Amino acid sequence: MSGQQTRQWILANPPTKDPILSGPNATFNLETTTLPSPGANQVLVKTLYLSNDPAQRAWIQLNTDPARLYTTPVTKGEVMRAFGVCEVVESNAPNLKPGQLVSCVPGWSEYAVLDAKDCRPIQPDEKAGIRPTHFIGALGGPGLTAYYGLVDVVRAQPEDAVVVSGAAGATGNMVVQIAKHIVGCRRVIGIAGGEAKCRWVESLGADICVDYKAPDFKEQLWKATEGFVEIYFDNVGGDILDLMLKRVKRFGRIAACGAIARYNDPEAGGLKNWMEIIVNRIEVRGFIVTDAITAGKSGPMVQKIVEKIKEGKIKIGEDSETVVPTRFEDVPKTWRMLFEGGNQGKLVTEIKG
Amino acid sequence: MSGQQTRQWILANPPTKDPILSGPNATFNLETTTLPSPGANQVLVKTLYLSNDPAQRAWIQLNTDPARLYTTPVTKGEVMRAFGVCEVVESNAPNLKPGQLVSCVPGWSEYAVLDAKDCRPIQPDEKAGIRPTHFIGALGGPGLTAYYGLVDVVRAQPEDAVVVSGAAGATGNMVVQIAKHIVGCRRVIGIAGGEAKCRWVESLGADICVDYKAPDFKEQLWKATEGFVEIYFDNVGGDILDLMLKRVKRFGRIAACGAIARYNDPEAGGLKNWMEIIVNRIEVRGFIVTDAITAGKSGPMVQKIVEKIKEGKIKIGEDSETVVPTRFEDVPKTWRMLFEGGNQGKLVTEIKG
Repeated sequence: MSGQQTRQWILANPPTKDPILSGPNATFNLETTTLPSPGANQVLVKTLYLSNDPAQRAWIQLNTDPARLYTTPVTKGEVMRAFGVCEVVESNAPNLKPGQLVSCVPGWSEYAVLDAKDCRPIQPDEKAGIRPTHFIGALGGPGLTAYYGLVDVVRAQPEDAVVVSGAAGATGNMVVQIAKHIVGCRRVIGIAGGEAKCRWVESLGADICVDYKAPDFKEQLWKATEGFVEIYFDNVGGDILDLMLKRVKRFGRIAACGAIARYNDPEAGGLKNWMEIIVNRIEVRGFIVTDAITAGKSGPMVQKIVEKIKEGKIKIGEDSETVVPTRFEDVPKTWRMLFEGGNQGKLVTEIKG
Repeated sequence: MSGQQTRQWILANPPTKDPILSGPNATFNLETTTLPSPGANQVLVKTLYLSNDPAQRAWIQLNTDPARLYTTPVTKGEVMRAFGVCEVVESNAPNLKPGQLVSCVPGWSEYAVLDAKDCRPIQPDEKAGIRPTHFIGALGGPGLTAYYGLVDVVRAQPEDAVVVSGAAGATGNMVVQIAKHIVGCRRVIGIAGGEAKCRWVESLGADICVDYKAPDFKEQLWKATEGFVEIYFDNVGGDILDLMLKRVKRFGRIAACGAIARYNDPEAGGLKNWMEIIVNRIEVRGFIVTDAITAGKSGPMVQKIVEKIKEGKIKIGEDSETVVPTRFEDVPKTWRMLFEGGNQGKLVTEIKG
């Protein structure tokens, strides 16, 4: 069989600020190519869903010392990297039959040839409400990030009050739920953008969720964190982090997970409140979920989460995903919704032609 | 005996930026008062030396939530607080005879009446080169801060390379020496202002000391930290901290000790490189030395330092102090040298009339 033809989005111009979606300086270019036939222990897969992750923005940043990156960057001319859920179309690997769904890294490509070892077979479970997309969401990177960050990195305990920013995001909503339903934290406070998202975060178990778009956001946040909090799980960085430095309790802890507020503009206003870290003896820990995965921790974490889903405690219903049916030529557009607060829960691109 | 007359510097106008030394908005006012006679278990002391500490700037900052301060602030109308070395003049306490030198908190006052329990008798040891001023320097707050921060807070080990900013300061020079001569760190890199200070820091054992005033400071720092470093001991905050976030190794640690670069201007440029904490899984720990003292750790720490002084490893010679003979009316002026980089080693005010 000859190679499969596919369209791919290629990184054409690594951006320094907002990604540019069209014109001569467009960040990505749509190209068509013919893939090689899969070799021994390789498979040809068809992309069904693409994962949209804030981290992808970091993978394409210009002017970053490669020694400081946590993963190989995507360089000019390469296919844009992305996690996804794919279906095996053709297989030279004994463990993967055609039709099998896998979680893998197809990139922004309709089809991809991958090593079988990089494709994790997944088993959706309709009765338990576990859909294929959950393997790039609640049971994938975001869910593991939430669990690892909260439980391992900042060692949340039942006596802790926890603030979570980006609480309506893919990771944030899982932090809220894990804090409440697995750790049993005494108080869980979300920060999200807009009334609807805040009410949704509260429906997941947050004691309160504060709307950062509200004109009196700071007052609301101060009230919600009266007496200060032991833990801040930071998904956003920027101004909200700066405020939270003033609301973490003496000897409190910060899980530094993400900084989406600055990904498109690293030169925007810097942090002013570092002194709080000193005076209040705050512990800050940066982390990347791949460390947990490499250390073989993901299995037991996923198991815990699945357990709570089956008990009906952790909710992964349709409102915990924003699945956007997307023509392949609009893949970058859907991805960019991440930076516009366009999603509730996991932002998933469903490839539709 | 009737009360002792004394001059005192009173906090008149808490500053928001640089302290103001004269004029109608002066930060401090010189006043004369008569002290009460010492009561039971109290002493009258005469101030010989005043300690100048960057932390004093934080004690008088306006607009800070008292719940976030690590110590009671000095409020308008109170005597400016300061550590010092005093001589007991009159005593109603059995353990303190007139003539005894004590380490205490006299404030900016020629004389003070203090509870005996707040006066720690000190024993200078001329043969070992231990002078009275060392009890507010190498064997006082700065020495303990250096030891606690490096050994307890960021757990320095022989296999670690350490960068220390403010390396020619009271705390910084002790961090350099403790890193080299007590922990035995593989590499110790200082950052200080000016050629003379840098060469002095190297004479204390630093493998290299980089001059932040040099036009090619960044290049020099990058070269000195090739391969990155495990630990950064931060005494200065601001731009140097921002640079160092890019030079701490993956899974490295930062001891957040001070931020003198911003004390007089908290609104100056904020930190831009927080992302490094995430991507490189950096651990940041703020700390305050009083925690170590309260926990009863200071005795063994001082003992370790004295041991190394007697072995000739840790140097506390006259070049490790800037003792400024000061008329009492110039006490604030001498203090302000701290913020101008005016001192090498501990900045001590010697009261001279």
